[in-house]
Amino acid sequence: MKVTRNQVLLHEDDVPTHWYNILADLDVPSADVRRARPRTEPTDGTAPERGAGAGLAPNLPLSMYRASVGRERFVEIPAEVRAEYQRWRPTPLIRAHALERELDTPARIYYKYEGANGVGSHKLNSALAQAYYYKKSGVEHLTTGTGAGQWGSALAVACRAMDLECTVFMVRVSHDQKPYRRVLMELHGARVVPSPGGLTQTGRRLMAERPDSAGSVSVANAEALEYARSVPGGRFCVGSGENHVLLHQTVIGEEALKQLAAVGEFPDVVVASMGAGSNFAGLAFPFHRERLRTGAATRLVAVEPEACPKLTRGRYAWDYNDISGTTPMTKMYTLGHTFVAPGVHAGGLRYHGAAPLVSALYDQGLMEAVAYGQKTVFEAGVLFARTEGLVPAPESAHAVRAAVDEAVRAREEHTEKVILLNISGHGMLDLSAYQQYLTGELADHVVSDEVIAASLAALPDAEPAGAVS
Amino acid sequence: MKVTRNQVLLHEDDVPTHWYNILADLDVPSADVRRARPRTEPTDGTAPERGAGAGLAPNLPLSMYRASVGRERFVEIPAEVRAEYQRWRPTPLIRAHALERELDTPARIYYKYEGANGVGSHKLNSALAQAYYYKKSGVEHLTTGTGAGQWGSALAVACRAMDLECTVFMVRVSHDQKPYRRVLMELHGARVVPSPGGLTQTGRRLMAERPDSAGSVSVANAEALEYARSVPGGRFCVGSGENHVLLHQTVIGEEALKQLAAVGEFPDVVVASMGAGSNFAGLAFPFHRERLRTGAATRLVAVEPEACPKLTRGRYAWDYNDISGTTPMTKMYTLGHTFVAPGVHAGGLRYHGAAPLVSALYDQGLMEAVAYGQKTVFEAGVLFARTEGLVPAPESAHAVRAAVDEAVRAREEHTEKVILLNISGHGMLDLSAYQQYLTGELADHVVSDEVIAASLAALPDAEPAGAVS
Repeated sequence: MKVTRNQVLLHEDDVPTHWYNILADLDVPSADVRRARPRTEPTDGTAPERGAGAGLAPNLPLSMYRASVGRERFVEIPAEVRAEYQRWRPTPLIRAHALERELDTPARIYYKYEGANGVGSHKLNSALAQAYYYKKSGVEHLTTGTGAGQWGSALAVACRAMDLECTVFMVRVSHDQKPYRRVLMELHGARVVPSPGGLTQTGRRLMAERPDSAGSVSVANAEALEYARSVPGGRFCVGSGENHVLLHQTVIGEEALKQLAAVGEFPDVVVASMGAGSNFAGLAFPFHRERLRTGAATRLVAVEPEACPKLTRGRYAWDYNDISGTTPMTKMYTLGHTFVAPGVHAGGLRYHGAAPLVSALYDQGLMEAVAYGQKTVFEAGVLFARTEGLVPAPESAHAVRAAVDEAVRAREEHTEKVILLNISGHGMLDLSAYQQYLTGELADHVVSDEVIAASLAALPDAEPAGAVS
Repeated sequence: MKVTRNQVLLHEDDVPTHWYNILADLDVPSADVRRARPRTEPTDGTAPERGAGAGLAPNLPLSMYRASVGRERFVEIPAEVRAEYQRWRPTPLIRAHALERELDTPARIYYKYEGANGVGSHKLNSALAQAYYYKKSGVEHLTTGTGAGQWGSALAVACRAMDLECTVFMVRVSHDQKPYRRVLMELHGARVVPSPGGLTQTGRRLMAERPDSAGSVSVANAEALEYARSVPGGRFCVGSGENHVLLHQTVIGEEALKQLAAVGEFPDVVVASMGAGSNFAGLAFPFHRERLRTGAATRLVAVEPEACPKLTRGRYAWDYNDISGTTPMTKMYTLGHTFVAPGVHAGGLRYHGAAPLVSALYDQGLMEAVAYGQKTVFEAGVLFARTEGLVPAPESAHAVRAAVDEAVRAREEHTEKVILLNISGHGMLDLSAYQQYLTGELADHVVSDEVIAASLAALPDAEPAGAVS
């Protein structure tokens, strides 16, 4: 069926009523997809300040946590959260006619566009849900760490919506050099502090050791965690990786399913960029359920940067979530918690590990992964802008790159193919990166085998001691 | 009727099939709303390089021009243009529940959001239509001038969609100091040159006179006009003011009408920011038709900056469209073509005159106007961001300011009132302006009576000599 519609819009009543929990359709031991207490002390030589592991686990609101580790297929979206979603969802599904013409491909390419809300990315889907559950559990103040600031700005908006205080620890180099996301967070009412900084012991110690420290997301999260304990009703939260975050993001895929069905389509390939995995899972997981139900041979493809190839070159192992090894362990595809990705522009994809749920899917051969260098990614981003009239965020441009390659392959193989990808955010605050690409200043960052071998060697030796949560 | 829906989404088939031509419902002499040949030479002392007036009129494609000066109520949108609209339209209509709660107002506030497309503003509505008509009339290359770059980036996307070359002359100070809109235009395939610059005689002369010239939209347009004549199949076009631009923008109001009807509402007040008038007209004109039809007492309110108060403090007179007085004359509310507005951040609202169609409506008392200083405008923009989760462009924040004041008045007067406003664009590329507001660096720019009197004194003496187009 040749579809000619340019866009598939749903009614606001079509915002999903339930999130999809892939654990209902995944044959994996529960222990492998939960956080666990480490058996060993951190292996990188740093002594964690407050004893190892479990003590630093963020305390999740029970109802949110339970739904994300249970086996119930559908989790009802609370009415208050769904009402917030309805302020900008359902997001459009757009047929990439112009891109198809440019590629002269028989493939039909559809993209879900998550960048049209006030913060410009999919992060708001989980931020609103988390803020709701934390608020309901009595929390008054959420803290988090952020790099470029996509997650931080989403949390700022969500906290405002749910009447919570919000403090964002922003990696110092981004805070100082890329002020716009900071301004955006402040505009939405959050307090933004550079990390490392003077608000926490961790920050003060690091500043004393190295006054010119650029900071990192790992440090920012450590500070946010410490700070949360020092403010009344404070709690630390994160924007990817954890089961509940992936769960919240499934509204993307659920809507896309319905939109494709409205034009009589089902995808042959589902493509999304891969940081810790919430964006990929949000789009792809519901299609896993539907391919099981229908027997369709749909491929799910995660796209990661060559600079941080956790799936394509990492190992499936128990590891810490942060560089200092103070967080609980999770079983995941990882480059090792001591791995530091080179500074590519897709800051959202630089996390060393993959979410446990995505890792389990990948381990079982139920999905694929592919890695690209940033130059070819930006080339695809520019192609997308010049055909579809929309500048994708550098993270999303990874998905564009893979979708374009799939479409070219369809042309070469003379096969019709339906490709679905997610434009998880727009690139309006990433134009300096595009400028660097256009002027030829952008470099690729391939990670050597030696570097990966070294960080994999620093993986903890043993299985964890027991469950945390 | 108390409506609780958060958002009203339409189906893509609900994209209007026709633009609305207000001339069918406005009792005004045709001559008063057309461009005319000046009788006198420019009065500012500069000798135009190629003889006065008419010779420099942009040559409009005949079918586009005729529709915009005729009296036919509805103009069919060409299928090719409508198909492009369907890539991101209908845009959402959102109920500002959170803003209403914050203001504790009985008013119901709805905003149309035009910022969700790839360039982030309503400008794309006319850019696509113009590019289509020019292409059809054999034009190969469009040129234009742009200040901050909203119009330029929309035209870049439209030219790409219609397979036209695009050259944008960007005011030099913006080109050098605010590179992101320039990068955005280049990403969309346009050639962007600083103005004044070396591509034209006008630019070279100005550079020779003042090598450090910051440029202005007036100069950029003069260069774009000259350059258009030097390239094969070149034509100069503009993004506001002209009848056809206002016509194209009426898709905004037509959709809003349908969306409000879907929830059983009709506005008591329609509010939009006012530059030359395409944004205001786009939202408000269809409501003029409907209030005539139904007898509703709907008020239409244009919001301009105190720094450029063409409606509230200008004069209804024949005037030139540019500072050098080389363009045809139009009858309009104007501060005089030699008026140069102070450098407020809402660059899109700094034009010295109002569109002839808006001016006629205002002259007949069929609409209102109000002017605000930029500090109170940014205050409203921040309030909107912190309640609705969306940062409005500084231009759009003018409409927010007026809508908030209407809502507060409704509270004081204990009246239910339905307020409709247009968020014509997002502020993602204006965060530095918001930063200045947040840090208290922003100044108001009230224009003195003397300055306005002086520029009004430079108005041409006489009525025009005859029709141009």
